[in-house]
Amino acid sequence: MKRLALRGLTGRCRILIGESARNLAAYAPKNRTLVVTDRKVYGLYRSLLRGWDVHVLDRGEKTKTLATVERLQRALLRKGYDRGATLVALGGGVVCDIAGFAASTYMRGIRFGFVPTTLLAQVDAAIGGKNGVNLDRFKNVIGLFSQPDFVITDPGFLATLPAREVRNGLAEVVKSAAIADVKLFHFLEENADRALALDLKILGRLIERAAGIKVRLVARDERERGARALLNFGHTLGHAVEKTTGLSHGAAVSIGMAAAARLSAAWGLLQVREARRLVGLLDRLGLPTRAPEDKRRILAAIDKDKKKDARLVRFILLRGIGSAVIRPVRLDGLKEILNDLC
Amino acid sequence: MKRLALRGLTGRCRILIGESARNLAAYAPKNRTLVVTDRKVYGLYRSLLRGWDVHVLDRGEKTKTLATVERLQRALLRKGYDRGATLVALGGGVVCDIAGFAASTYMRGIRFGFVPTTLLAQVDAAIGGKNGVNLDRFKNVIGLFSQPDFVITDPGFLATLPAREVRNGLAEVVKSAAIADVKLFHFLEENADRALALDLKILGRLIERAAGIKVRLVARDERERGARALLNFGHTLGHAVEKTTGLSHGAAVSIGMAAAARLSAAWGLLQVREARRLVGLLDRLGLPTRAPEDKRRILAAIDKDKKKDARLVRFILLRGIGSAVIRPVRLDGLKEILNDLC
Repeated sequence: MKRLALRGLTGRCRILIGESARNLAAYAPKNRTLVVTDRKVYGLYRSLLRGWDVHVLDRGEKTKTLATVERLQRALLRKGYDRGATLVALGGGVVCDIAGFAASTYMRGIRFGFVPTTLLAQVDAAIGGKNGVNLDRFKNVIGLFSQPDFVITDPGFLATLPAREVRNGLAEVVKSAAIADVKLFHFLEENADRALALDLKILGRLIERAAGIKVRLVARDERERGARALLNFGHTLGHAVEKTTGLSHGAAVSIGMAAAARLSAAWGLLQVREARRLVGLLDRLGLPTRAPEDKRRILAAIDKDKKKDARLVRFILLRGIGSAVIRPVRLDGLKEILNDLC
Repeated sequence: MKRLALRGLTGRCRILIGESARNLAAYAPKNRTLVVTDRKVYGLYRSLLRGWDVHVLDRGEKTKTLATVERLQRALLRKGYDRGATLVALGGGVVCDIAGFAASTYMRGIRFGFVPTTLLAQVDAAIGGKNGVNLDRFKNVIGLFSQPDFVITDPGFLATLPAREVRNGLAEVVKSAAIADVKLFHFLEENADRALALDLKILGRLIERAAGIKVRLVARDERERGARALLNFGHTLGHAVEKTTGLSHGAAVSIGMAAAARLSAAWGLLQVREARRLVGLLDRLGLPTRAPEDKRRILAAIDKDKKKDARLVRFILLRGIGSAVIRPVRLDGLKEILNDLC
């Protein structure tokens, strides 16, 4: 087991990579813990949850609402959980986001932990203390920064993960490598096929490295006023693609990363062959690298992205594989250029 | 103007006692600020709000719901407010509680400030960074700790305050004096009539002293793991009275303080004449000191108070005027004794 520690404003988070979910009771007292999960995970891992008090959510992004949070908090209240309770999320990013927000605002904050079951959540969503829900069609606009007490990252869950979900997670690993770790990028190039074939040894190493990158960036800048924003590489455009096309998060971010790499090359920041290398790796991982349809709608959606500050967008560009920079870019100019690049 | 500063985990709060609300623009940029208020305050102070973008809430405790928070956040979103926006609450404790929570969870936290318009909010509710809403019939169970950037305490608002609201605020001043400041208690005894007659000079001094006590206790213990709990003197029982009888917060807390003082005396902690001195001051301020009706319902409601930790209640007792202690008390024993004392 590999342990990482992340000290945030709201407390210290232990990330336990390679720990078994069967040891959950060592981290959360069974008699004072409510486990939140979704229907699918509950169906697959019911035996793991024997003896635990469980609250089951509907699946998917549409569940990420304040109404869902309120139902969960009402359940906590009716079941008599007080300030000494622990809330545990067992599931993907959606379950973690909802549970983290509900716990952080129940009685002004109770203890909580995550047991991420998807690759995406293990390498990205469960780490860093961002939580929250959507409002209308705007992603994650209601939420806060609050560190979980623990994250149990059990690669065993990946055995039941659909191929699409594996690719989703790998997109975020590519992102981490592209912004901060050229060796990890090379390792991914060498082992793309084994990763896609769910080789748990390879996936374990990818999780460890990608989680480590995220922990370092968040530790430097929990509130995303600087360095943490590098983790948004591919996400400004990615969120817009996700919203307008309904593509999965990983696929949308892949398109966003490819466009940002082309833009970096067009502006002379990144060598053209490095941009091609990124696009090539995404291709090999079965991830899309061009926007599928009506680009005007996608570009219009950037306007509403919560990361914009007035008319400037903090855009993440590459100056090499493993090295990223933040550039404030005027929204109008960006839209014009991106039309050709995505 | 008297300035107090409170450094919390989420930032530094400036409390400006005696500042005029007309100077709001010096603290919040007019073009990037949404002011939240309620119908009554809006009716009284519309001229003050000329040129400001305003969001008007319904009045009263029943407005304190997640649904209200969501409507406010939707308004922020639709009006295009981003992370650089400021939210200002102009109103009493309810408006501050809602706005503070909405701002702290909008885009993971935007800047916010309070302009409290009631005595209760000026001496208590607007200070300390607790915010939140009710769920079903449970008070303040959804919320968090988050410091406002500024609190503008303008005693001029008190000129339009109904007598009932003045007494409400004075109950919290009595509380502050009883737990931490015997001189303030004496000053109140000397000036009770002038305070009730809205003598702004007297009220200004009361606000300054009571706000100072709260700032000191919160600075020592923002998350209420110790000393801050002293501010709950009279509130464990008070919340139960408020919920079951519909009495105002100040009146309910007054009954709670009187009972806690009698309990302190019954347990030999407080001299009987000191307990009578507290009850006497509350009487003079026109505040009730006995529970009005069915005590069983009131005592049952303590069970649901969010401050209980399992079966123990952290009860605040007095060992002298100006000196309070926290005692963990078994819920069963407490209920038996209180039946005779409240």
